[in-house]
Amino acid sequence: MFRKLLSLDEAKQILKQNFSPKPVGVERISLSEAHDRVLAEDVVAPMDVPPFDRSTVDGYAVKAVDTFDADEDRPVALKLCGQVNVGEPPSVIVENGMTAEIVTGAPLPKGADAAVMLEYSSRNDDNVFMHRSVSKGENVMEAGSDIQKGETILRRDQRLSSREIGVLAALGLTEVDVYKRPRVAILSTGAEVVEPGKPLPSGKIYDVNAYSFSAAVLECGGEPINLGIVPDDRNQLKAAVKKALNSADAVITSGGVSVGPKDIIPQVVDTLGKPGVIISRIAVKPGKPTTIAIVDGKPVFSLPGHPTSSLLMFHMLVRPIIRKMAGRPEETPSVLKAVAATRMFPAKGRRTFVMVNLNYDKTGQLFVSPVPTGLSGAITTLAKASGFVEIEEKQQFIDVGAEINVHLFSKNSLPTQPSK
Amino acid sequence: MFRKLLSLDEAKQILKQNFSPKPVGVERISLSEAHDRVLAEDVVAPMDVPPFDRSTVDGYAVKAVDTFDADEDRPVALKLCGQVNVGEPPSVIVENGMTAEIVTGAPLPKGADAAVMLEYSSRNDDNVFMHRSVSKGENVMEAGSDIQKGETILRRDQRLSSREIGVLAALGLTEVDVYKRPRVAILSTGAEVVEPGKPLPSGKIYDVNAYSFSAAVLECGGEPINLGIVPDDRNQLKAAVKKALNSADAVITSGGVSVGPKDIIPQVVDTLGKPGVIISRIAVKPGKPTTIAIVDGKPVFSLPGHPTSSLLMFHMLVRPIIRKMAGRPEETPSVLKAVAATRMFPAKGRRTFVMVNLNYDKTGQLFVSPVPTGLSGAITTLAKASGFVEIEEKQQFIDVGAEINVHLFSKNSLPTQPSK
Repeated sequence: MFRKLLSLDEAKQILKQNFSPKPVGVERISLSEAHDRVLAEDVVAPMDVPPFDRSTVDGYAVKAVDTFDADEDRPVALKLCGQVNVGEPPSVIVENGMTAEIVTGAPLPKGADAAVMLEYSSRNDDNVFMHRSVSKGENVMEAGSDIQKGETILRRDQRLSSREIGVLAALGLTEVDVYKRPRVAILSTGAEVVEPGKPLPSGKIYDVNAYSFSAAVLECGGEPINLGIVPDDRNQLKAAVKKALNSADAVITSGGVSVGPKDIIPQVVDTLGKPGVIISRIAVKPGKPTTIAIVDGKPVFSLPGHPTSSLLMFHMLVRPIIRKMAGRPEETPSVLKAVAATRMFPAKGRRTFVMVNLNYDKTGQLFVSPVPTGLSGAITTLAKASGFVEIEEKQQFIDVGAEINVHLFSKNSLPTQPSK
Repeated sequence: MFRKLLSLDEAKQILKQNFSPKPVGVERISLSEAHDRVLAEDVVAPMDVPPFDRSTVDGYAVKAVDTFDADEDRPVALKLCGQVNVGEPPSVIVENGMTAEIVTGAPLPKGADAAVMLEYSSRNDDNVFMHRSVSKGENVMEAGSDIQKGETILRRDQRLSSREIGVLAALGLTEVDVYKRPRVAILSTGAEVVEPGKPLPSGKIYDVNAYSFSAAVLECGGEPINLGIVPDDRNQLKAAVKKALNSADAVITSGGVSVGPKDIIPQVVDTLGKPGVIISRIAVKPGKPTTIAIVDGKPVFSLPGHPTSSLLMFHMLVRPIIRKMAGRPEETPSVLKAVAATRMFPAKGRRTFVMVNLNYDKTGQLFVSPVPTGLSGAITTLAKASGFVEIEEKQQFIDVGAEINVHLFSKNSLPTQPSK
């Protein structure tokens, strides 16, 4: 299968058959660090919420039956037996014919089963007049009515936002089991790349991919480990990828996958473990030299050196895998329809991705056109694009005026619509 | 203006008039920490990218003029004068009638102005035959053609994703000026609240808001500072809010804003600086007791103790402010249309927010219905909801079958559509 040019769909299929991405482990972390992590356990409520019957109004705790005859004109008189404050266990018991002052959120005292709102009462010393009847449970939030002890209140695989974190706090929990972030080792290769910040000798360029991949791994919920630049030497490369495999759950290399004599990454990776290289070159543009290996259960993605190609291939092939390893759900792509402003051609026989921009015309029609800098190997193409258009292998071209799908890089990629 | 019940729109207007949220400062951070931060400077390219003319193909560097007569049948013979590798300054000069071997990405040697692809050449010792003509610049990516030295390549206020970080790395930059994260102090009040993890005495409940607000502040790009629970004591509260104002750019308190005698937060906050309380109670449901003060240029948001009310008010009033203080752009709300499955009523005279769920019926029609637990003060309502429906003050009700806007809490809140 080595060196066979696969279609993108075949490549995805083979990847799926050879590697089932799963969360890489579970760790217990504090609630204050849990934001945006993914639950690795069902959370069963260890207690009722609220933990006791609470008044939902300011007023008087009563036995409902004592108020049944009350109305606006003929209030019922009850004897004040005390008061209940918020945050304190009630010191009174409400017997028949009695009532206790209560505030919102305070625990209902023993004997009481309802509360009358302050505005439906009047008072004369220890005599409190109820001008309205209440039914049992009225103006009371019962113990466990929000969350019941023993209830499974949050489910495994749920992502923790402010709302779920509030639920965990309500249960008094301070720690939670979440999926570990998958560790993704990143290696750059190529005689021409230099780490940013260092002087740039003649003929060299700065390494882009280690930095863009690191950020892209973070975007997937992974933890990037930047292992720097490795020279184009078979032994050094082998040692570096081996080390990466030992310290990480997945490896991404960039560069060294074209057909030149120095593009030795695929050969090196293939010797490290079984099954080795499963995908070697894909019929896509850009991104053709992309190579994927599985080495003893860990994926090694060898992406091209060109920043735009490699980040696009990351988006297509690596991102879904790392997201799953981080326990995140499958993404629904952010797609919208727009009208082609120019004719767009695919590369012959290859699934082609055209980086595009979106613009509204004066009538509010959304138009899509390729990013002006169409230079091969350009770094800015992707940064300047709002998204991309996918052209099928067999399609001749996309014609001007055709309505097509545009994949957005983010929800914020959309231009502002002109006010009509 | 104290105690005047404002409409939500009036409240937003008054907030806008009294406080213009701006980024709170600038800090220089390393590129590897820059993901998801917001640029505080225009980035002007300090160098050309690529820094030199590069071949975009494997083949031969030539003077284009030497190939003009070449075609498939009558190739032009050029003399091999050397080779150029990737990452090395060329050691050869291409004179008329000469050519140098070159690989993709290698610098074009002096004298050459184009490259012929390997497949359009043949070779016999030092004689290389070009079977196709090339024009000047063909198969060459010129120095500065991707990014030109002096060009403003990224703009202030741009959020840094993997794509922008790649551009910064290409320029050799290792640090970048970003907006500081606004520090948001969070205080809980109320005699009934206890920190999660501690034993829960009778009559008490666990503090939810400090945790949900902390996560919500992170979601806006802010840095939460959880200052814990402050007793309902005027002096202690005053000291705590003062301290919070000294250490943070904004303050959020929860609890202590209802009308009870112990709800002293508004009075306390009003004494701390000018103009003091600008919004006191808003005609919304839930969230009515919400109070907002500006104290010597810093906002103090005093939200209700009920977790659902307070997190909803955070979403409405606090989130847009903190996002702007973090340098993030205004959000376009995530809204979709759905059909009301039940009749929904507003609270009289108040803008009402109903927490809702979304479900597809068998025909693929999306229906919206209130979250079953409509308990006042329930913590789970918000966590169980996919979003909310807003009912205008003057609207009588939303009828069954009406098509209405649903505000989603996140893009992932949408249920899976049934396959038809």
